[in-house]
Amino acid sequence: MKVRVLVRLKPGVLDPQGRAVHHALEGLGFAGVEDVRIGRVVELDVAESTSNEDLDTMCRQLLANMVIEDYSIEKL
Amino acid sequence: MKVRVLVRLKPGVLDPQGRAVHHALEGLGFAGVEDVRIGRVVELDVAESTSNEDLDTMCRQLLANMVIEDYSIEKL
Repeated sequence: MKVRVLVRLKPGVLDPQGRAVHHALEGLGFAGVEDVRIGRVVELDVAESTSNEDLDTMCRQLLANMVIEDYSIEKL
Repeated sequence: MKVRVLVRLKPGVLDPQGRAVHHALEGLGFAGVEDVRIGRVVELDVAESTSNEDLDTMCRQLLANMVIEDYSIEKL
């Protein structure tokens, strides 16, 4: 089973990498970019028997830093 | 307009970060994880007038390293 986990900074948490990319896009001449946020995508290939609870625990224990990040799980 | 760009290593390119996460998940007792690949997610808030061609150019020029990475663009 393919699972995609998106890990993003919580709203309000400063994203210096996103700001740098935003600035660079403007420097390259792309007008109309209003905001850029950067996160991680973790693509897991797990056994069919893996429960939603297990996936949730993986995120909380390892994949996301729950203090500053949110995650969402998408089954592909 | 919200746009999500997923940047992933091309198949066959070694992903040490993914391997480390895979190993760590096994160490935490999660059995049945077969593969882990890590990439970036770039969430852009762009003007409605931004063309698909512009988004493509942003990816090729800045967001992805086309030598080792692939990207996909999803409009939200």
